[in-house]
Amino acid sequence: MFSFRALKKYRRGVAILWKRTNTQNTTRKLDIGGIYPPIATPFTEKEEVDYQKLDENLQKYSKIPFKGLVVQGSNGEYPYLSVDERLEVVRRVRCILPSSMLLMAGSGCESTRATVHMTEGMAQAGADAVLVVTPCFYGGRMNSQALIHHYTKVADASPVPVVLYSVPGNTGLELPVDAVISLSQHPNIVGLKDSGGDITRIGLIIHKTRLEDFQVLAGSAGFLMAAYSVGAVGGVCALANVLGEEVCDLERLCLIGHWDKARELQHRLIEPNTAVTRKYGVAALKQAMEWFGYHGGATRSPLQPLLHTELQQLRMDFSSNGWL
Amino acid sequence: MFSFRALKKYRRGVAILWKRTNTQNTTRKLDIGGIYPPIATPFTEKEEVDYQKLDENLQKYSKIPFKGLVVQGSNGEYPYLSVDERLEVVRRVRCILPSSMLLMAGSGCESTRATVHMTEGMAQAGADAVLVVTPCFYGGRMNSQALIHHYTKVADASPVPVVLYSVPGNTGLELPVDAVISLSQHPNIVGLKDSGGDITRIGLIIHKTRLEDFQVLAGSAGFLMAAYSVGAVGGVCALANVLGEEVCDLERLCLIGHWDKARELQHRLIEPNTAVTRKYGVAALKQAMEWFGYHGGATRSPLQPLLHTELQQLRMDFSSNGWL
Amino acid sequence: MFSFRALKKYRRGVAILWKRTNTQNTTRKLDIGGIYPPIATPFTEKEEVDYQKLDENLQKYSKIPFKGLVVQGSNGEYPYLSVDERLEVVRRVRCILPSSMLLMAGSGCESTRATVHMTEGMAQAGADAVLVVTPCFYGGRMNSQALIHHYTKVADASPVPVVLYSVPGNTGLELPVDAVISLSQHPNIVGLKDSGGDITRIGLIIHKTRLEDFQVLAGSAGFLMAAYSVGAVGGVCALANVLGEEVCDLERLCLIGHWDKARELQHRLIEPNTAVTRKYGVAALKQAMEWFGYHGGATRSPLQPLLHTELQQLRMDFSSNGWL
Amino acid sequence: MFSFRALKKYRRGVAILWKRTNTQNTTRKLDIGGIYPPIATPFTEKEEVDYQKLDENLQKYSKIPFKGLVVQGSNGEYPYLSVDERLEVVRRVRCILPSSMLLMAGSGCESTRATVHMTEGMAQAGADAVLVVTPCFYGGRMNSQALIHHYTKVADASPVPVVLYSVPGNTGLELPVDAVISLSQHPNIVGLKDSGGDITRIGLIIHKTRLEDFQVLAGSAGFLMAAYSVGAVGGVCALANVLGEEVCDLERLCLIGHWDKARELQHRLIEPNTAVTRKYGVAALKQAMEWFGYHGGATRSPLQPLLHTELQQLRMDFSSNGWL
Repeated sequence: MFSFRALKKYRRGVAILWKRTNTQNTTRKLDIGGIYPPIATPFTEKEEVDYQKLDENLQKYSKIPFKGLVVQGSNGEYPYLSVDERLEVVRRVRCILPSSMLLMAGSGCESTRATVHMTEGMAQAGADAVLVVTPCFYGGRMNSQALIHHYTKVADASPVPVVLYSVPGNTGLELPVDAVISLSQHPNIVGLKDSGGDITRIGLIIHKTRLEDFQVLAGSAGFLMAAYSVGAVGGVCALANVLGEEVCDLERLCLIGHWDKARELQHRLIEPNTAVTRKYGVAALKQAMEWFGYHGGATRSPLQPLLHTELQQLRMDFSSNGWL
Repeated sequence: MFSFRALKKYRRGVAILWKRTNTQNTTRKLDIGGIYPPIATPFTEKEEVDYQKLDENLQKYSKIPFKGLVVQGSNGEYPYLSVDERLEVVRRVRCILPSSMLLMAGSGCESTRATVHMTEGMAQAGADAVLVVTPCFYGGRMNSQALIHHYTKVADASPVPVVLYSVPGNTGLELPVDAVISLSQHPNIVGLKDSGGDITRIGLIIHKTRLEDFQVLAGSAGFLMAAYSVGAVGGVCALANVLGEEVCDLERLCLIGHWDKARELQHRLIEPNTAVTRKYGVAALKQAMEWFGYHGGATRSPLQPLLHTELQQLRMDFSSNGWL
Repeated sequence: MFSFRALKKYRRGVAILWKRTNTQNTTRKLDIGGIYPPIATPFTEKEEVDYQKLDENLQKYSKIPFKGLVVQGSNGEYPYLSVDERLEVVRRVRCILPSSMLLMAGSGCESTRATVHMTEGMAQAGADAVLVVTPCFYGGRMNSQALIHHYTKVADASPVPVVLYSVPGNTGLELPVDAVISLSQHPNIVGLKDSGGDITRIGLIIHKTRLEDFQVLAGSAGFLMAAYSVGAVGGVCALANVLGEEVCDLERLCLIGHWDKARELQHRLIEPNTAVTRKYGVAALKQAMEWFGYHGGATRSPLQPLLHTELQQLRMDFSSNGWL
Repeated sequence: MFSFRALKKYRRGVAILWKRTNTQNTTRKLDIGGIYPPIATPFTEKEEVDYQKLDENLQKYSKIPFKGLVVQGSNGEYPYLSVDERLEVVRRVRCILPSSMLLMAGSGCESTRATVHMTEGMAQAGADAVLVVTPCFYGGRMNSQALIHHYTKVADASPVPVVLYSVPGNTGLELPVDAVISLSQHPNIVGLKDSGGDITRIGLIIHKTRLEDFQVLAGSAGFLMAAYSVGAVGGVCALANVLGEEVCDLERLCLIGHWDKARELQHRLIEPNTAVTRKYGVAALKQAMEWFGYHGGATRSPLQPLLHTELQQLRMDFSSNGWL
C-alpha cells in the first residue's frame, strides 16, 4: 500500500501546481486537498450515540491516509442529532483523531443565526474547518442573494475556515454557480463540497474561481476520478467509510497521472458507492461498514433498516465488483 | 359579517352530515373542521421573537370566526426557531387565545425521537392538537414504511390528537396516499393538512378514508373551494393571516352551498394567496399583514426582504383583485 | 338515465349564465361546454388502424349525451400515427358521428408550419374545432413568447376554432398562465383543455379570462367536479371512453348543483380514471374498454400490453369502486 | 494544428487498447470513436431548407479532423422537418461528405414502426449508422421493457449499425442503465450517445458493458474530458459546429494523456458550450456559427431568435473565454 508520506508529497505537489496563478495572495488559505470519509454516527440499540464504537472506528480511520474526516455530513445523520449531541460528537472525534488529520465539522442549520452559533460551537469543540450545508426549507426563496448573505454572515463570524456544501439530493437545492463564484472571494471561505455530481458545473466552478484560492471537493466516490480530471483537489466520499484505502488509492492514481489504472479502480467503485448513497442510503452504509470491520449499527428512526432483498442487492453491488 | 355562532352551527351540521357513516366509532375524534391561519412569528429588528406584537395580532385574530390557529406551520418560520422558542411561542398563544379556539401546534422534527419530544412539549405548552410535517432530509428513503413507522410512534406517544402534514413545496416529499390511508386508522390521528394542492389526490384520500373518522384540511386558500367541493372540512390558509374574514366567508359560502358566490370570492383570493405563498413566501405574507393592520415585520435570515419590484407586484396582486 | 335534451338545456343555461359578462362580443365563439371522450384508436393485430372497430365504437358513443368527441388527443396514440392516418381517422369519425356532436381534432405538431398544415387538413377532413398541444421537444425554449407566437400563427390560419392544450404529464411543459391570458383574446381561440390538474391554476385562468369568451375544459375525470366548482365548462376525459354515461352524469350533477351526489360519484371515478391514465396509460384504457363492451385492442409499439399484475390491479381499481 | 492522419493513428491506438478484452468477438462492430458535430439545418428566410448553405458548411467541416457528422440530432431541428426533408438532407450530406467521414443519421420517431421505416430510409439515403433517440411522449410507460423491445425491433431491421441516444434534456427520459446493458449485447447496436451528462452513470455503463464491443460517446462538449477520463471514445458536440478544431484538439489531448493542457482547454469550452445548448439552444448555436464563418441562419418556428440581451450574453460567453 501507498505510504502516508508519499501521498502527502503528491498532494503538496499538486496543490502547488494548481495554485501557481494565485501569487497575489500573500497568505494562503487552508489546504483541504485529499480524501475524507464523512463518518457515520454509531448508535446503541436504544438509538443513543455509541461513543465507544465511534472511538473504535476512529482508531482504524487514523491509520488510513485520509486528509481528514468530515463529522456530520449527511451520512452522519446530523439532522437527527440534538445540538448538544452534534457538539459532543465533534469533541470526541477531536480527542481521538491525530492532529495531523483535519477535522471538518458540519455546522449548517436552517437559520443564519443558528448556523453562526453552531459554527462557533464547532470551532470551540475542536473543528479545523466547518462544512456548511445550504439552508433549504424555504427553497423557493433561497436564491443567490439569500445564500450569499447567509454564507457571508457565517464566514464573517466563523473562527475557522468555511467550506460550502451543495447536496441537492438531500436539500433539493443546488448552490448557484454565481453564488459560489462570489463567495469564493471571501477570505474565510476556502472551498466547496459538491455532491450533485454535475461534472460540467464542477468544471465551470473550478474555471471561474481559478484566480481565487478556492478548492473543490467531490462529494461522492462515484465521480471522484472525473472530478480530479477537471481540477478538483479531493473528495468527501461516503464509500471511504468502508473502502478507505481504495478511495485513497484512486486519489493517488489520479494525482500521479496513472489514468488507465485509475479508470479501472473508479469503475469498480461506482456500484458500491451508489448502493451506500443514493440507492439505499445511510442504513446501507452502516451495514457495509459492518462487513468491512467497522461499527455501523442501526440508524435513528425514521430511517429504517434495509429489507432482506435490499440487503442481498447491497452485497451483490460489492461482491460483483470484487470487494466481498 | 357572518356571526361566529352561525358559522359554528353550519360547521356542526356539516360535520354530522359527513360523518354519518362512522357510527361504529363510539368515541369520536376531535372535530377540526374550519379555517385556521398558520400564524406568522413577528421578530424585532434584531430578529428576536417579538411577543408583544404577537399578542396584538392574537387579539385581532380572536375576533375572527376561525376554528383555531396553527402555530408553527411553514409560515411561522419554525425551522428558524430554537426548541425553546418553539415552545415559548405556543405557551404565549395559549395564554391569549380564547379556549374556544383550537390551538394546533407544529411539532415535526427530522428524527422520530425529537418529534415525540417536541410533541409532548407542545401538549404541555397548551396545544390542543399537533401538526406533524413529514421528515424529509433523507427523502429518498422516506417511503410509506418509514413514514408509517414515524407517525405511528409519534401518535402513540402524543397526549393530544395528531394531524398529518404534507407540504411538498417545502419538503420535496408528498406523504403517499397508501400511508395516509393506513395512518387514518390510528385512534390518535385525526386528519391531514394537504398543502400540495393536487385535488385528485385530495378527493381520493377523502374517498378512501370515508369509513374512518378522518378529516382533510386544505393547506392553502388557492384551492380551498375545490377542496370543499370534494369533501374537505376546512383549511389552513396563509392568506387568512391577512384576509381572515374573507377566507371564513368563503368557507361559509361553500358550507351553505352558495357555489356561484363562492366561486367569485375564490377567484379573487387566488392571486393574493399565491403571492404570499409560492411566489414570494413568508416575507410577502408579513408585508401584506402590515398593509392590513397586523404586525408582520421582518423575517429571520436567510429569508430576505422583498425587492422593490416584488413589493410592487405583491401590492398589485392584492389591488387588482379589489383588496387594496 | 338523464336524457340528451335535458342535458343540452342545462348546458345552454350554464353557458348563458357564465358568459353574461361578455356582452361586448357581438359574435359569440363556438360553445364547447360538455363532456368529450378522447377516443382511442383501435388497431388490428398487425398494428394497422382498424376502421371497422372504430366505426362500431362510434355507433355506441353516438348514443351517449356527449358534447362531442376528441379525436387524437393523447389517448388516440396520435404521435404513433402517420400524417395520412391522422387525417383518415378524422374523416372516418366525421362520417359516422351525428352532426349534432362536435368533432374536435388534435392537430398539434412540433413545428408551427406542420401544425398549420395539419390544422387545415383536419378542418378539411371535417373537424369542427382543433385541439393544439404545446410543442415541447425544445422545452427549455418554449417560453410564453414562443408559444404565443406559435398559437397565434396557427389560430390566424385555422379555418375552425382552436382549443389550446396543456398536458404536462406528456410534454413536460405547462402552457404558462400569462400566455393563456394573452391568447384568450384571439378571436379564433375558444378555450383550453388543461390536463395538468392544478386546480388553483385552473381557477386563476378562468378568473383572468372572465371578460373574454374563453372556456376551460378539465383534461381528466379525476378533477372534473373540482374544475366545475371553480368554473370549468366541461371535460375531455379518457375515462369517458369506458364510463361515458357516468361521466356525463357527473357533469349533470354539477350543473344542477347536486354537489353531495356529485361528490359521491366523483370519488368513485378517481381510481379507475387514474388507472387508465397516469398509472397504466393507454394500454389500460384499451383493456378497460374491452371490459365495458367497446373495442380497445392492442396499442402500437413501443407501448406494451399490461403485465399480469397490472391487469389485476386495473380490474381492482374498477371493481373496488363498484364498476365491475 | 494537429493533422488528420496523426489523429486517426491515435484513435486507432486507443481503439485497440480499449477493446483488447473483446477478443471473443471474431467480427468487430463499427468503430465510432472520435468527434462529431451534430450539424444544424440552415433555413432560408421563408424557413425552407437551404441546401446551398448546407453544402458550404459541409465543405468546411470536411477539412476538420472529425470522425464524422451527426445529421439530425437535436441540434438539426429534426422534429421540425418533414419525413421527406429528413431523408433529403441526409442524401445531400452524403453527396458532399468525404467517404472517409462517418455519416450518422438521426432516425428516431415515436412509434417503433415509423422508426424502422425511417431507419431503412436513412440507410438507403447513405447513412453509415443511425442514431435513435428514445421515444418519449408516453414517458411514464417507456420503461426498460418497452425500450428494449423498441430498440431490438429497430436494430433487427436496420441495414446499418444503431447508436442509442439518451437526451433527457429534450425527452424528459433517461435510457435506463439496465436497458443499455441489455441492448449492448445486440450485434447491430454499437454504442450510446449520452447527453444527460451524469458522469457516474456514464462510467457505470462503460464498466458494465466492458465485455461487449460497445462504445459510449459524450453528448456534449461540456463534459467531454470527464467522459474520456472514465472511458468514453468520443463525443457528439453541438459546439463542434462552431469550434470544431478546438473540440478535436481536446480529444487529442485526452487521447495522448496531456491532462493538464486538456483541462485548461476543457475549462474554456464549458461556457460557450452551455450557451449554445442548455442555456439558449439552437438559435444561439446558429448565431455563433455565423460569428465563426459558417451559415447558421434562422430557426424554424416556434423556436424564436434570441433577444438582444441574450445575444450579448452569448457573445460574452465566447469572448470571456478568449474565443471572440
